[in-house]
Amino acid sequence: MRDVVIAGVGSTEFGRFPHVPIEALGVKAAAHAILDAEIDRQRVGALYVGNFLSGTLNGKEVLAGLVGEQLGLGNIPCTKVEGACASGGIAFRHAWMAIASGMCDIALAVGVETMSHAATSQVTGALNCAMDNENDGPTGLTFPGLFGLAWRAYEHLYGVTRGQLSAVVRKNKAYGLRNPLAHMGASLSDEQIADSALICDPLRLFDCCSPSDGAAAIVLAAKSALPSRRGHHIDVLATVQTRGSATVMGHPNLTSFDATVSAACLAYERAKVRPNDIDVVELHDCFSIAEVIDSEDLGIVPRGRGAVWAAEGRTTLGGNVAINPSGGLLAKGHPVGASGIGQIYEVVQQLRGKHPNQVRDARLGMTHSLGGTGVACTVSILRRSET
Amino acid sequence: MRDVVIAGVGSTEFGRFPHVPIEALGVKAAAHAILDAEIDRQRVGALYVGNFLSGTLNGKEVLAGLVGEQLGLGNIPCTKVEGACASGGIAFRHAWMAIASGMCDIALAVGVETMSHAATSQVTGALNCAMDNENDGPTGLTFPGLFGLAWRAYEHLYGVTRGQLSAVVRKNKAYGLRNPLAHMGASLSDEQIADSALICDPLRLFDCCSPSDGAAAIVLAAKSALPSRRGHHIDVLATVQTRGSATVMGHPNLTSFDATVSAACLAYERAKVRPNDIDVVELHDCFSIAEVIDSEDLGIVPRGRGAVWAAEGRTTLGGNVAINPSGGLLAKGHPVGASGIGQIYEVVQQLRGKHPNQVRDARLGMTHSLGGTGVACTVSILRRSET
Repeated sequence: MRDVVIAGVGSTEFGRFPHVPIEALGVKAAAHAILDAEIDRQRVGALYVGNFLSGTLNGKEVLAGLVGEQLGLGNIPCTKVEGACASGGIAFRHAWMAIASGMCDIALAVGVETMSHAATSQVTGALNCAMDNENDGPTGLTFPGLFGLAWRAYEHLYGVTRGQLSAVVRKNKAYGLRNPLAHMGASLSDEQIADSALICDPLRLFDCCSPSDGAAAIVLAAKSALPSRRGHHIDVLATVQTRGSATVMGHPNLTSFDATVSAACLAYERAKVRPNDIDVVELHDCFSIAEVIDSEDLGIVPRGRGAVWAAEGRTTLGGNVAINPSGGLLAKGHPVGASGIGQIYEVVQQLRGKHPNQVRDARLGMTHSLGGTGVACTVSILRRSET
Repeated sequence: MRDVVIAGVGSTEFGRFPHVPIEALGVKAAAHAILDAEIDRQRVGALYVGNFLSGTLNGKEVLAGLVGEQLGLGNIPCTKVEGACASGGIAFRHAWMAIASGMCDIALAVGVETMSHAATSQVTGALNCAMDNENDGPTGLTFPGLFGLAWRAYEHLYGVTRGQLSAVVRKNKAYGLRNPLAHMGASLSDEQIADSALICDPLRLFDCCSPSDGAAAIVLAAKSALPSRRGHHIDVLATVQTRGSATVMGHPNLTSFDATVSAACLAYERAKVRPNDIDVVELHDCFSIAEVIDSEDLGIVPRGRGAVWAAEGRTTLGGNVAINPSGGLLAKGHPVGASGIGQIYEVVQQLRGKHPNQVRDARLGMTHSLGGTGVACTVSILRRSET
């Protein structure tokens, strides 16, 4: 396997753009990434587009071909990949595979989703395509329901308070306010969070991420294929994809997701780093309780201590490890297929020292996406290049 | 890149199974393929599922995770790939990549689609997701419309008669009658074809393939990973994926599809064979005229002679080259995401000498899928193993 670097990144703002065609958002982010990489687009040898709902919500498939054509790429393989919320991470991993294997020297990964044009009920139904609707469907469970259950299970096993989870929300919302790509940032008090609308007991409005529109893109290259650009190119040390259960009964313990645990273990092993080497993590905080669970599953916070660490400020800038300084899904928004690529965009800016919420001297970063009920997971470890 | 063989194949019948969950069809085909390969399913290192419309028509995504879980695979990467009618071929190519690159030793490619439970108008709308609905959508064009235009363009450029295209239909329908996996086989006279319902002038009912339900699966392995099984294992000499235009205006000449031409050129080059070395071809006959165009684009019939060759019987068993002895999409049916994998199933049976419409002493076979308006194409070349 060849060494692979991230040569360029691009992103649209995450927000509400109900009149912009989904492929146009993808093209915009990709065009930014190609400029940032300073490459000729004719050198791109493979395109992967991570997307979850373009067929269901937009009546559009062949999204990879549409983006490839409108970008002016060659007649290269253009593939849409799907794994619910992990779709973006899966696109990144496949672009990496295409290069690491020697199939091509430069590849492009794009994540894109548009949701704001659709009615809320339609979006809720579409998001539930990520569940096992044959088995869990008849229970009427939706994702807030699942993570409400996870909160209760966590409370039962380890104990957790409203205030501890509000600390997660306050942190991410505050970071979002300073991230120009985020559209759900806010300065919130504990009272505002605790008094916000009850979505699915015990989850309140501010515990939940928001459906969004947006796109992000990454240009990956063989390390040997481009002139070195120290400080700009970022090393891909590991990118891992795993499977977990698509059903609730497949998770006997909802305070942990197998797919995350196994992906993180493999990623550390391949990157040859330890959890406490990681300086900054963008992880899948679709709900406040998810940030707590993910931080433990990734091994960066001790088991059962995620909520306590958040309340003690240990997961902020200047704490033990910075979690979601982009604002995360909670504040940046969650255009499903784009989120995983958006996380990589954010970590790359951190490792370049150019993030609006900069982690001081960040050298190693991690990204994590979890699809559906934990049915698909991606974890990547990135490093500031020393050469 | 390592040598890759097809170790096992499986397929459901293609037909109408409106009460069977889509993932169950995929699992069934995959279980057959795993048995045929005589492997332990825990050795499967990657799963790719080719599917076009599970979100739109079934309200189900994460299809790869669902199939992986229900098959009892490990926590391996499970990825849905989409490229309209080329989705199955794209799944096959990615399973090949995973092995050729050394990422894993055994991989599984599944293609699956269910359509018969949905109303015809819903299916027509869903199929149109494979068009550039932003640009071509307002014209009201559907796929019969596109291939009706292609027929007229071909007629204008080379001349073609109703009788010549009926020869394509009669051949494929007759082969389908003898293929137990096909559900649209028939013994038809020229009159029956010419008098069948007008779908989109000049296309008649029997010129068009049928939406279907079905699944097919392939187990691929590194040649070095399994004990040799002469006559059973099939060598993958090449598998190529390309992009063409998603719009009609992107095709100045509708009598040829760039994506097929470039994929075929690359496939011959990589496989180190010539077009007239090929003994049997399963190609994308979504409409009778498509078989003619594809046979020329693949270089196996001289340009402008596809319809004449069909009428002269040169594309039958015992002719110059056997085209679609499975019955093709016209007679086997077209469960979109499954068709590309189904073609590989058919060619493997030919190269094993076990096909119901056997091509005598078939040694080299080719498969070809074309998605949408030619926006995505896959071509594979397979060889009977001599070792």
